[in-house]
Amino acid sequence: MKGNVIVGQSGGPTAVINASLAGVFKTAMERGYNKVYGMRYGILGFLDEQYVDLSDYIKNELDLELLKKTPSCFLGSCRFKLPGIHEDQELYKKIFSLLDKLNIEIFIYIGGNDSMDTIKKLSDYALLTGAKQRFVGCPKTIDNDLAITDHTPGFGSAAKYIATSTKEVIQDAMAFSYKKKNVTILEIMGRNAGWLVGSTALSRQEDCNGPDLIYLPEVPLDPDAFIQKVKDFTTIKKSVVIAVSEGVKLPDGTLVCELGNDAAFVDAFGHRQLSGAGKVLTNMIAENVGYKTRTIEFSILQRCATHLASRVDIDEAYNVGYVGCEAVMNGETGKMITIEVLKRAPYVADYGIHDIHDIANVEKKVPDEWIIRNGTYVSNEFREYCHPLVLGSLSKHTAGGIPKHMVL
Amino acid sequence: MKGNVIVGQSGGPTAVINASLAGVFKTAMERGYNKVYGMRYGILGFLDEQYVDLSDYIKNELDLELLKKTPSCFLGSCRFKLPGIHEDQELYKKIFSLLDKLNIEIFIYIGGNDSMDTIKKLSDYALLTGAKQRFVGCPKTIDNDLAITDHTPGFGSAAKYIATSTKEVIQDAMAFSYKKKNVTILEIMGRNAGWLVGSTALSRQEDCNGPDLIYLPEVPLDPDAFIQKVKDFTTIKKSVVIAVSEGVKLPDGTLVCELGNDAAFVDAFGHRQLSGAGKVLTNMIAENVGYKTRTIEFSILQRCATHLASRVDIDEAYNVGYVGCEAVMNGETGKMITIEVLKRAPYVADYGIHDIHDIANVEKKVPDEWIIRNGTYVSNEFREYCHPLVLGSLSKHTAGGIPKHMVL
Repeated sequence: MKGNVIVGQSGGPTAVINASLAGVFKTAMERGYNKVYGMRYGILGFLDEQYVDLSDYIKNELDLELLKKTPSCFLGSCRFKLPGIHEDQELYKKIFSLLDKLNIEIFIYIGGNDSMDTIKKLSDYALLTGAKQRFVGCPKTIDNDLAITDHTPGFGSAAKYIATSTKEVIQDAMAFSYKKKNVTILEIMGRNAGWLVGSTALSRQEDCNGPDLIYLPEVPLDPDAFIQKVKDFTTIKKSVVIAVSEGVKLPDGTLVCELGNDAAFVDAFGHRQLSGAGKVLTNMIAENVGYKTRTIEFSILQRCATHLASRVDIDEAYNVGYVGCEAVMNGETGKMITIEVLKRAPYVADYGIHDIHDIANVEKKVPDEWIIRNGTYVSNEFREYCHPLVLGSLSKHTAGGIPKHMVL
Repeated sequence: MKGNVIVGQSGGPTAVINASLAGVFKTAMERGYNKVYGMRYGILGFLDEQYVDLSDYIKNELDLELLKKTPSCFLGSCRFKLPGIHEDQELYKKIFSLLDKLNIEIFIYIGGNDSMDTIKKLSDYALLTGAKQRFVGCPKTIDNDLAITDHTPGFGSAAKYIATSTKEVIQDAMAFSYKKKNVTILEIMGRNAGWLVGSTALSRQEDCNGPDLIYLPEVPLDPDAFIQKVKDFTTIKKSVVIAVSEGVKLPDGTLVCELGNDAAFVDAFGHRQLSGAGKVLTNMIAENVGYKTRTIEFSILQRCATHLASRVDIDEAYNVGYVGCEAVMNGETGKMITIEVLKRAPYVADYGIHDIHDIANVEKKVPDEWIIRNGTYVSNEFREYCHPLVLGSLSKHTAGGIPKHMVL
């Protein structure tokens, strides 16, 4: 008799992370596995024996569709890094005894590079101890900073939200650009990789110039050069829009946001919660350039706006869940599912699988050659890379004009 | 021979203000008027003879549809209050000579209560001097604070955006609510009237509890009572979400945002640009309650998110343009078009017309009886009032996955 499956979600939510959960559940049920458990709040909740039987919640195709269109993590999430195996063997024994207790054969974790570390450590431990469980990771992060895979589910929808909102803000800012000039700064997520802030350039189309300047965390921001660039644009344009990453740094490595007043919060992965770079730069412009300035932080809206999810992204998120479940059932362990783009136009993608040791804790940044204009814009190649990922949308489930969600 | 028509847009943009422009243009052309001019940047641009012939841009039904789905003010906007007639007769003479020069018979202004002051003054001047021009206003404001009309075009779409985003943020905040409690503050527009912040309550449905507390500008916020309320909620809930108006005030009348660091900007109508109330309250919670806190400002996204416009709102915006144009052609002047709701369920609305003197510079606030729980929530009546206004959506025009807009 086949054992059971357990699946968890970890790290920051995306607009489509639940589509991967739907893909895992559907595949496991189709392949005749007995139970599909969902761990509540990732491995952190599982350690407290917090889990649900997903078939209590997903009862039919309609439920599955609704789950695909639900933002945030249906099961709850965590930011919890397992200690090294040698550091706390008791913890690992506990996890594996809980897995045995539920007769778990297959463990799937949907997450980013920190979460893939969990897959790495658990699969290593299983190999070391001869435990029967197999472990596979499904990629997920709006940041698009996972290695090996062409891109990550969650990025396309975040990029679609960011590009759409950027375009709407640019049109709005132009409405008041007659007598008075204005400068708008958009603060976009992305700690060390500029994929998200770069996606503002997708708003550049025949009906919109896109942002005037884009500052990625990959390239240091020199305040004097920044002010000069803004001055240059305000001499030729009435309304200037600048996109900056929350993680943008000065040449000496100081985070721009650290120049602000906002208290810095450090999460359980040791990452500082970054916020305020936009405000710091806005104040810099107000002092040095003098025009009306405004900061807009897209904040967590960019990771939870499932109402604007891209169809390609939802499908791929579902598919990595499907393929991940299938792969681990076929005997794989210690791997992550990857997306392999065979052609960008017309877009053709397939799925692969890769050793987790090459992926966990590695960050993929925007290639140097895609960052142009002295670090103040992204190239056409960058836009062509992103373009297929934001295409299409699914019909909405709404009630009373507001999107309907599936909740525990 | 019929004279010409001129139309302008004024004040803050909405997601659907261009639908009203489309309604005016279509009606004027259907009724056989010769030219429909659009003033650039409202009356401010018109004073510099900045205008366009709209038929150069709107050439067919598809253009008209695209215009209806374009955010911001297609013609540009202004915040410019005309002086009193007795204060600067020369200015009025100039305006009317420009109108005569273009053979304008009909003047339509799409705007909020400050913009209706322009219609009032111009129509008064025309009556005083026997000028041939007639003046009608079409209501427009996300703030929903215009008198006489049941509601204003622009409000429904803003409410739909706010309710949708609030619901998505609430789901997101719950993902991390296992071990650590969190408090999220949503800062919503609305200087003196709480319609927008109240619309966060539309997220309260069977799959979502909605925000836990709602602070409207109509009711003073007592910091001690506020902190106590937050403490109360954090004892019974892991994730607490609070919606506050940007214009929320302390019992002594001080704006909460004035307690913060952000420089205050005063616009040409003399209104202070309000921003920072959420941050001030977030810091207050961090100091007194101690949980992880976050502020999310919906900022101008709530007034330009045409990608999430409500169908009812787009239709009504178009219709007030249509009816406004028709009314002034039929001889009306010094009036504003109103929406009259005959039934809320099933929703049946008609259009009326009302003397501008009762509307200009008047602000409609949320009725006392709709504000409940000691000023910390809105009633079911409030939600029933809003509910029909957020229904439905129009199919999107997109290119490359991003909404397409019509621009000058």
